[in-house]
Amino acid sequence: MRAAVGVDLGGTKIAAGIVDADGIVHARGSVPTPAAHGPGAILDAVVALVGELLEGLARSASVDAPSFEIVGCGVGSAGVIDVERGRVASSTDTLTGWAGTPVRDVLQAGLGMPVAVVNDVHAHALGEAVHGSGRDARTVLMIAAGTGVGGALVVDGRVHTGRHGASGHFGHIPSPEAAGRACTCGGAGHLEAVASGPAMCAVYRKLSGDGSVDDGREVVRRAESGDPHAGASVDLAGAAIGRAIGALMNALDPDAVIVGGGLAGAGERWWHALRSGAERERLTLLADTPIVAGSLGTDAAIVGAAVLAMSQAPDLVEGTA
Amino acid sequence: MRAAVGVDLGGTKIAAGIVDADGIVHARGSVPTPAAHGPGAILDAVVALVGELLEGLARSASVDAPSFEIVGCGVGSAGVIDVERGRVASSTDTLTGWAGTPVRDVLQAGLGMPVAVVNDVHAHALGEAVHGSGRDARTVLMIAAGTGVGGALVVDGRVHTGRHGASGHFGHIPSPEAAGRACTCGGAGHLEAVASGPAMCAVYRKLSGDGSVDDGREVVRRAESGDPHAGASVDLAGAAIGRAIGALMNALDPDAVIVGGGLAGAGERWWHALRSGAERERLTLLADTPIVAGSLGTDAAIVGAAVLAMSQAPDLVEGTA
Repeated sequence: MRAAVGVDLGGTKIAAGIVDADGIVHARGSVPTPAAHGPGAILDAVVALVGELLEGLARSASVDAPSFEIVGCGVGSAGVIDVERGRVASSTDTLTGWAGTPVRDVLQAGLGMPVAVVNDVHAHALGEAVHGSGRDARTVLMIAAGTGVGGALVVDGRVHTGRHGASGHFGHIPSPEAAGRACTCGGAGHLEAVASGPAMCAVYRKLSGDGSVDDGREVVRRAESGDPHAGASVDLAGAAIGRAIGALMNALDPDAVIVGGGLAGAGERWWHALRSGAERERLTLLADTPIVAGSLGTDAAIVGAAVLAMSQAPDLVEGTA
Repeated sequence: MRAAVGVDLGGTKIAAGIVDADGIVHARGSVPTPAAHGPGAILDAVVALVGELLEGLARSASVDAPSFEIVGCGVGSAGVIDVERGRVASSTDTLTGWAGTPVRDVLQAGLGMPVAVVNDVHAHALGEAVHGSGRDARTVLMIAAGTGVGGALVVDGRVHTGRHGASGHFGHIPSPEAAGRACTCGGAGHLEAVASGPAMCAVYRKLSGDGSVDDGREVVRRAESGDPHAGASVDLAGAAIGRAIGALMNALDPDAVIVGGGLAGAGERWWHALRSGAERERLTLLADTPIVAGSLGTDAAIVGAAVLAMSQAPDLVEGTA
């Protein structure tokens, strides 16, 4: 059975899985990211994790499980990725020294198979678009809200990465709800400044005067218990995401919108604000476009990275033959 | 020489040309749109205009000009176009009864050749992306500002039309400069409410108290003559377009941004405000992305429509054989 390795390389965790052509994950594993130990340690950890998965697979194949033809490895990595060169174009300092790392070349040498690299949010979107909630849609707009706000446009099973690999910085479009608020990018008034988990906490701290809260899930819990300041913070964050979704629908008219990230589990109140915001902003003729949650959970980026590896496999095999 | 007919079907004028595979327009003509006389009269006018062009071409070919193999006709039409069915999905009442018109089927019967239909702004963007200012870019974001504000995303020579053919409604994304202003779509605070030609006039009328101005070019002239209210109106419109461009760059990371439409000729002051707005909004890593004016002028939609016809020609020929 044709399959690929999918790797989700994030700031706190490296997760990997063996994914077949139908998007089924047959084996998975994860290790903490040695984030402070530099690119060498991080990529060593990837090689070790993937090696263990493949060994486990080889053992079980000898018993009764199907055997897999592994065509390559896809990596969804934190940072802005130069997809063509398979290297990190730029990165925050979550991963020490990550910018400039030639992820593809190092992993190809370490794993002995073709490797394709893409941004982790792009991998997440690709997974959901091809094998998750978007599997019946030609064009998928994915928006993920959590520590930050980002996403991707996927057209015909290909993620639109852009000139610098920076496409999908949806957190950095103007949001009426964010007017005057400083953004993580150095600008102001951007969506992320009101709609990310940390921003939602900051709004709550300001409204409530309670400076102790720094976890978005705690704000959601308080909103559900009737705390009016928490409710207002959740409503504001949801409405801002929703209006941005409506604006992006007007700009891109996708077949489906998929919402993911940590806040997508933030409960009905956030979703209600999001849907109202989107309805308010989008053009009437777009009313039938579905806005849905992702369906692959934490496997999404693994699956998307494997999709990328499989879609590039013929070229890569040729190139490395 | 392989060529196609390109038609730009607008509210006031129908223009057509014979366009070769290099995007060169070899013959062109135009007639006023019989906008109030219904779809039948409009499509009759297209058939007559294209017929004249082809006859003229046949006559000149017998002398010394190259002879053309016309593979089909592309139409860039006002209205939201259902590209798959080649019909008008929805339309303002600029063209009476236009919504629902099966443009492709009627013109295929009338012209006796394969016909492909797309929205006129999408055709404009496709022309500029493939043969105009974007010819060296893989991904082009086109934004056109004039009576309205719209545009398109073109990737690898294909215009992204979207689920309903409505992609590129960039006029209907929130704009900080438009906060509180009513938009033509029924919403408020959208880019078009401050950055279109009519909106720029409305801003000027309000600032100056001079209710007589209803032509954007007049506002630009007054701005150039030192009228401070006109200057402020132009600055505001340019800044709003620029910030929207910056936001769309963050969202889509195109290889190039092309600015067209009537206001793209509005002079250096508008362009300066636009560039400053884009620089303010876009992420630092996108600083090298060019923002340029279109280079095809009023031929852009004709050329783009012909590009579409040529790209679809093999399928269409098969389908109609």
